[in-house]
Amino acid sequence: MPDTDRSGGAPIALDAMGGDHAPHEIVAGAVEAVRDRGLRIVLVGAPRPLYEALAAHGATGEIPIVRAEEALAMDEGALASLRRPRSSIAVACHLVRRGDASAVVSAGSTAGIVATARLRLRGQQNVLRPAIAVALPTLPHPTLLLDAGANAETKPEMLLQFGHLGVAYAETALGLEQPTVGLLTIGSEPEKGNKVVKRAHELLRAAPGLDFKGNVEGHDLLAGVVDVVVTDGFTGNVALKTMEGAVRYAFGELRSSIEAGRLSRLGALLQRQKMRRLARRLDPEAYGGAVLLGLNGTVVIAHGASRAKGVAAACALAASVAAGSTVARIGERIANSHRLHRLW
Amino acid sequence: MPDTDRSGGAPIALDAMGGDHAPHEIVAGAVEAVRDRGLRIVLVGAPRPLYEALAAHGATGEIPIVRAEEALAMDEGALASLRRPRSSIAVACHLVRRGDASAVVSAGSTAGIVATARLRLRGQQNVLRPAIAVALPTLPHPTLLLDAGANAETKPEMLLQFGHLGVAYAETALGLEQPTVGLLTIGSEPEKGNKVVKRAHELLRAAPGLDFKGNVEGHDLLAGVVDVVVTDGFTGNVALKTMEGAVRYAFGELRSSIEAGRLSRLGALLQRQKMRRLARRLDPEAYGGAVLLGLNGTVVIAHGASRAKGVAAACALAASVAAGSTVARIGERIANSHRLHRLW
Repeated sequence: MPDTDRSGGAPIALDAMGGDHAPHEIVAGAVEAVRDRGLRIVLVGAPRPLYEALAAHGATGEIPIVRAEEALAMDEGALASLRRPRSSIAVACHLVRRGDASAVVSAGSTAGIVATARLRLRGQQNVLRPAIAVALPTLPHPTLLLDAGANAETKPEMLLQFGHLGVAYAETALGLEQPTVGLLTIGSEPEKGNKVVKRAHELLRAAPGLDFKGNVEGHDLLAGVVDVVVTDGFTGNVALKTMEGAVRYAFGELRSSIEAGRLSRLGALLQRQKMRRLARRLDPEAYGGAVLLGLNGTVVIAHGASRAKGVAAACALAASVAAGSTVARIGERIANSHRLHRLW
Repeated sequence: MPDTDRSGGAPIALDAMGGDHAPHEIVAGAVEAVRDRGLRIVLVGAPRPLYEALAAHGATGEIPIVRAEEALAMDEGALASLRRPRSSIAVACHLVRRGDASAVVSAGSTAGIVATARLRLRGQQNVLRPAIAVALPTLPHPTLLLDAGANAETKPEMLLQFGHLGVAYAETALGLEQPTVGLLTIGSEPEKGNKVVKRAHELLRAAPGLDFKGNVEGHDLLAGVVDVVVTDGFTGNVALKTMEGAVRYAFGELRSSIEAGRLSRLGALLQRQKMRRLARRLDPEAYGGAVLLGLNGTVVIAHGASRAKGVAAACALAASVAAGSTVARIGERIANSHRLHRLW
């Protein structure tokens, strides 16, 4: 079964060298994931600093270490992954490939993780490109946005497949039945958008097995109108970062507006706790990170600035995705879609 | 001087038939613009309903009406503008072309306005494509984002020109000296983005007369890091709507979070006024609308859902852009850039 994840009960391979606060916060996150969440973790990286960091938590011997002497720097992109076959992220992928780990988690550079994972884990059969899926904090359940940045150039057929990847993920990891799909563009009418999007609209509309609801726009992303929003990695990445910036801006404006007043200072005190709770829900750290879909193995990309809490959340996400057999479901969906396509 | 606006002191031609609340709210906005802001307005549309609406405000004879029997429906796109040479927006453009009006304001469908204005006013010499510029509510002065949706497909040379259009607008309408320019993409390094963006980065970096600060990302849009942000109309439109949706979402979440609590209800009361004031600053109606740059005349696109207040704000924006000679400044910038380009 080349298209399935062969490593159900295995531990999570955590790239201990990737991220702005590696290795200390990564190790702290591993300790939290093991002790508080009951997960099994393998740390991948340079043994000496990892031993020391574990010792600082009194966790020597509690979490195994797999040696990787090299690491990708945060500013190293796709090419570095070819030059460094023994980087911590490459070794982590290798563990998944061998079945010794159930998933990879890294807070390293997104471009480096995507390139390394594509090279080491390979794409699932007939999957044109992997895509990064991000869970947006809508209620009652998250809205998936993909691709959030794995591919800067996209063909219409890839956007169609992103629909299948997202639906498989929504079914397996979020437990949704018959998830709905929307295409991100600049108007609700089918003819709105650029050439790639217009063709993708036709493909999505004609696709059996997808509950395609048509076009969605930027203001729909946090409105929960569909379960899965499909877009190219350029637009998706801009939209995601715009959203983060706008939410931060709105809270910042509100805070300074509140602090500027006299009477309202009392109000601010009463509300501080509420605002903190809300900010947590909107905090990317809290829900763990993005998932790279379409490869022969589960890969979770944690925020580069992740601290222990974010790393532990990313490990929990990876464990639930791996347990949910998302990789297998994607394999089935793409195989069906491919078969139907060849029949036409 | 074919590239300049020939109609300095003339009134503003207001398309009275465009918008979700036309003609009543448009006429109400015209009355507000004339009475409260001292602007000169000409209403363009079907005379009978406009007379009636004016009469309802006791403003019969106060604002002239120019007859246009047809109107573009909100769901009519670019093609309708060709089929309707006597639509209210077409007649409004004609008034500007003849020098009988200083600017066009419409709350009609963006696609219809852009197509009609391109056809009737024509692009300025050597301008490849007009672009929609939107002022984002950053402090101490707005950040311009363009193109916010006039062109779904863009070439690198167009993005370079958008830089010049935006800078000319920032200089003349916002009064900024040597405005800075950024290119919206998915990473700060020059090589981040799709092919069009990477080439545009090179062109912008090499352009004399542009203070190009390099790439910006989605989270920079409301951070005020540059004065002018250049992007294609697809990405710009998605980013703008995403931003609006995210700000609305953040306030909505905060409101329900506040209302859910007991103690915090008191806080909510104390802060209601602050929040209202802030919401007003973020309200697209308050700052009037988007400006279509690169044509032989000033065109302001008001929000389709504009009510009187938004219409009046759009008229005020149009008057200030027309008075600031943005069209002439764009003509100079494009001519210089074109001349230099030919010398190479």
